[in-house]
Amino acid sequence: MEEKMYQKILKIDLSTGKIEKEQISHEISKNFIGGRGIGTYLINSMVNKKISPFSEENPLIFATGPLTGSAAPTGGRYMVLCISPLTNFIACSNSGGMFGAELKKTGFDYLCFTGKAKRPVYVVINNEKVEIKDAQDLWGKDTHETTDFLLENSGLKNPRVACIGPAGENLVRFACVINDKHRAAGRSGVGAVMGSKNLKAIVVKGSKRDYARNQERFIETVKAKVEKLNSHPVTGEALPKLGTKVLDNIINEHGAYPTRNFQTGIFEGTEEISGEALVEKKYLKKNKGCYGCPIKCGRVTELPTKNRGEGPEYESGWAFGAATGVRDLIAITEANYLCNLYGLDTISTGVTIACAMELYEKGFIKKSDLNSGPSPNFGSSESIVYYTRALSFREGLGDKLAEGSLRLSREFGAPELSMSVKGQELPAYDPRGVQGQALAYATSNRGGCHVRAYLIAPEVLGIPEKLDPQETKNKANWVKIFQDLTAVIDSMGLCLFTSFALGAEDYLELLNDFIGCNYSMDEMFKCGERIWNLERLLNMKLGLTKEMDTLPERLLKDALSEGNQKGNVARLDEMLPEYYEIRGWDENGTPKSEKLKELGL
Amino acid sequence: MEEKMYQKILKIDLSTGKIEKEQISHEISKNFIGGRGIGTYLINSMVNKKISPFSEENPLIFATGPLTGSAAPTGGRYMVLCISPLTNFIACSNSGGMFGAELKKTGFDYLCFTGKAKRPVYVVINNEKVEIKDAQDLWGKDTHETTDFLLENSGLKNPRVACIGPAGENLVRFACVINDKHRAAGRSGVGAVMGSKNLKAIVVKGSKRDYARNQERFIETVKAKVEKLNSHPVTGEALPKLGTKVLDNIINEHGAYPTRNFQTGIFEGTEEISGEALVEKKYLKKNKGCYGCPIKCGRVTELPTKNRGEGPEYESGWAFGAATGVRDLIAITEANYLCNLYGLDTISTGVTIACAMELYEKGFIKKSDLNSGPSPNFGSSESIVYYTRALSFREGLGDKLAEGSLRLSREFGAPELSMSVKGQELPAYDPRGVQGQALAYATSNRGGCHVRAYLIAPEVLGIPEKLDPQETKNKANWVKIFQDLTAVIDSMGLCLFTSFALGAEDYLELLNDFIGCNYSMDEMFKCGERIWNLERLLNMKLGLTKEMDTLPERLLKDALSEGNQKGNVARLDEMLPEYYEIRGWDENGTPKSEKLKELGL
Repeated sequence: MEEKMYQKILKIDLSTGKIEKEQISHEISKNFIGGRGIGTYLINSMVNKKISPFSEENPLIFATGPLTGSAAPTGGRYMVLCISPLTNFIACSNSGGMFGAELKKTGFDYLCFTGKAKRPVYVVINNEKVEIKDAQDLWGKDTHETTDFLLENSGLKNPRVACIGPAGENLVRFACVINDKHRAAGRSGVGAVMGSKNLKAIVVKGSKRDYARNQERFIETVKAKVEKLNSHPVTGEALPKLGTKVLDNIINEHGAYPTRNFQTGIFEGTEEISGEALVEKKYLKKNKGCYGCPIKCGRVTELPTKNRGEGPEYESGWAFGAATGVRDLIAITEANYLCNLYGLDTISTGVTIACAMELYEKGFIKKSDLNSGPSPNFGSSESIVYYTRALSFREGLGDKLAEGSLRLSREFGAPELSMSVKGQELPAYDPRGVQGQALAYATSNRGGCHVRAYLIAPEVLGIPEKLDPQETKNKANWVKIFQDLTAVIDSMGLCLFTSFALGAEDYLELLNDFIGCNYSMDEMFKCGERIWNLERLLNMKLGLTKEMDTLPERLLKDALSEGNQKGNVARLDEMLPEYYEIRGWDENGTPKSEKLKELGL
Repeated sequence: MEEKMYQKILKIDLSTGKIEKEQISHEISKNFIGGRGIGTYLINSMVNKKISPFSEENPLIFATGPLTGSAAPTGGRYMVLCISPLTNFIACSNSGGMFGAELKKTGFDYLCFTGKAKRPVYVVINNEKVEIKDAQDLWGKDTHETTDFLLENSGLKNPRVACIGPAGENLVRFACVINDKHRAAGRSGVGAVMGSKNLKAIVVKGSKRDYARNQERFIETVKAKVEKLNSHPVTGEALPKLGTKVLDNIINEHGAYPTRNFQTGIFEGTEEISGEALVEKKYLKKNKGCYGCPIKCGRVTELPTKNRGEGPEYESGWAFGAATGVRDLIAITEANYLCNLYGLDTISTGVTIACAMELYEKGFIKKSDLNSGPSPNFGSSESIVYYTRALSFREGLGDKLAEGSLRLSREFGAPELSMSVKGQELPAYDPRGVQGQALAYATSNRGGCHVRAYLIAPEVLGIPEKLDPQETKNKANWVKIFQDLTAVIDSMGLCLFTSFALGAEDYLELLNDFIGCNYSMDEMFKCGERIWNLERLLNMKLGLTKEMDTLPERLLKDALSEGNQKGNVARLDEMLPEYYEIRGWDENGTPKSEKLKELGL
């Protein structure tokens, strides 16, 4: 017998202060699962035309999945959704830590903020009790100061805090939301939208516990999945030992480690900034896991400068390292710390600085544009720290960097130097060396992104099986499956890293055991496909055209000149038509009516 | 009528805990003035043969001058003397801040520590009351933690603290004594000798005030000197505005800015790391002066990394910058902060790391010697921060760096790569571009040093008149006069920087007005000469030979290959014989008996 899902949403209109509590229908819950799925559903129902991301019309949603707060391994994820000020399309940023599980314990699965507060506020949610409080004194403080203040002054015992830093306040287009001081809902500028609403922080404390419909069987299932994670070489060994930075040497050797703003695919300084170096130089102090996580890929680090924090992760270390040509692991880690303090997406920050470096070295940015800041040459360790701060406060050239690489490079007359898709900066894999990933980048609904479909797993790591990275045939199918399954995992409230060890049948088991929904494998995948297509429809409503399903020209036309991927370009045209077809979309990338009907959209 | 001087010394035997208070005779006071002069007299009377600097036989003296604590401009200096573990000769390191004036207010002009405490101790001096206290809990703490703890827990209101950091505890041969958190008795390893005695800190609090014999006239004299300082372009404008780092661009343009371990004399990154850059990049927050100082050359700085401290000064910024080829002003400043925290001489730290870089690039230090530390290539910003920490704790290669560049380069088979004189690292002026300074370096009684006779003033800055820097004739005479006058200024307790604006007659006036000693100009200079010769005699007793009055071979034989000093070497042989003669020394550099008789030695 199928159990009914009753997910709850807390709606807060920041313009009026009106607070409403609503329930989401079982139908919607079953079709969109939760988290990213239902978050997108909610955004789509509220946004009916092209809007300005910084206008009051842009809703801001914090979404948990049904398994968030459960005993499922990594079951602590939450997502932040809105229309992105970086891409102008859907934003959905996923974060770990402890905030998500605590939010779930309040009894609310979703928070939906609309409007804009007249003055800075923060919101305290203590089970059903919801208060909007004055945050004038917190405005301008960094995320650690803000969190510490709220932990001490909220009157609650061990609450959890998500907040923005100065970058979000200053509407930096790639500002993030930081929770638990070191975890980020990182990409697409969700923190800037929070800032545009004058919402500084959210404090949550709950005492409710959502049990599985069949708790006993669920616990057995969880045990089996934890065992799988612990015994897998990636989740049981590589990630605990070296964190995500296990990838530096692997991707560099593969020849797809984007260097100096994607001018080449191998970096001569990789060894010095790798995960191995972080351990050997003793900057790594210990591992740290998010809520319910047996992997514990988080890095607690301390530098010889005495600064302490978490990270850098693979993407962050690369963005401030190879992407900018910097081989100083101290400066890289300091820049990463600043991103956590000021509330910035590390990928977009590093890649935007890398773009500025190429603009400077090619003469588009002039010495007189620097406002006495350091010369942003590739390799300048001072520049990555200096400009990370400067852009957070929009000082000098930082004011232009705060707009992201696409707007920056347009302003200086060389838009081709922005390594972005749909306005969002690309992550740490050169698509010329991984064709499936090239297609995944080009079709990602949130722009340049590796966690909408992580084709690196099969194309480089051989998980679940090894694919030829230069083969384009059948990659469309792989991308579709990965995109749909990822949408399911995100929507459930689990961490994507579990998918190194777990397969679709594992997620199905966890889902069904917990919510008792009796999904078939086909129904579960259909949910992922439904979410993907709804994101696509929403984006099209916001102005997306098929011309935007592409990559920076450099990656399509200039072959890599060295390393294992020498001579290769991204062969998108060999895959995109097939992808549209498999998706049931027409040649313009528009979902056909049959497909929409099939998905009930 | 001549007034009598009664200077007081507090003797503390750390082995037995015995405390004695003694008076210094008027005769000695008149002959050696105070501070450096009487400090040297005391050391010389206690050390009668070659000793191991880390043995209990090495006395450690804290010395104020008669004008320390007075209203005289910059009248807050104190000195730390002992036998140096870096040179094995006399060490006398001068510091500002507030500690010296407070020490004077206790009624003691000198502290003399002998022996060695069984366990870590600190000493509290509250006027006449002297206590030796257990410092077990402070051992291992950095200078800021130590100072903060003692400021809070000494039971005294606003005391002043001088202490050592981990570097001194770990007997790093160029560890310093730090007072008031940011001021250093920097050179020659006086902090390591303090560490060898298990003496962690000295806390002073006094309420006595030593007035001038003719206070009214003295105050008028002081006013006139302050006016001179305020209206001079160096002390009234350049130093307040840019600090000592005003020199970066000047010395680089002169072609004598030692770069990459003195391989060349111009640095391509000077502009980015200059005093001007420190202001323009907004790392400078405000100026800060020591006790009684109208110049206020101190720099209170804050970095984008959020770390805050003081400096870097010209020498420190150069040692971690041009000397190591690093052009990252953030990393340079972080390394400088670490020197203050761990208690390290910045010049020797930077130049020793620069030496390691040349040893590494030339293959003497191998990758396997690095113990997973970053590759110490010239320009490696990470290395200057990493190895500053590593050598403080003697970790990995840091254990060898902690011995200083001479012992390091000998260990790796290339002693010619140590840019040192008598074992002490050279400061920020390439002697090939300033011949008088070359002679001053070679004959300095404490080894490689610019503040025993700062010939840069006449040879580059034109103060008090412009000399041709490549002329060798008559430079011996200039060096002698500068050496003798500097010994007087140090011994009085004033800052050498006053000598940009003040002349010998000004010091004579201040000295006579304050202590009422009625020195003639000739007598005052004779005091300086007496001190200089006593230092020389003491060094000879400790094993000094004329062969050590020299410079690294590179500076004597390899001509500079670029810049304004292209083609020049240091022409020491054209000056040294003349210098010996003018000094009244024989051809072996030994003071002749007539000279000793003349000086009463």
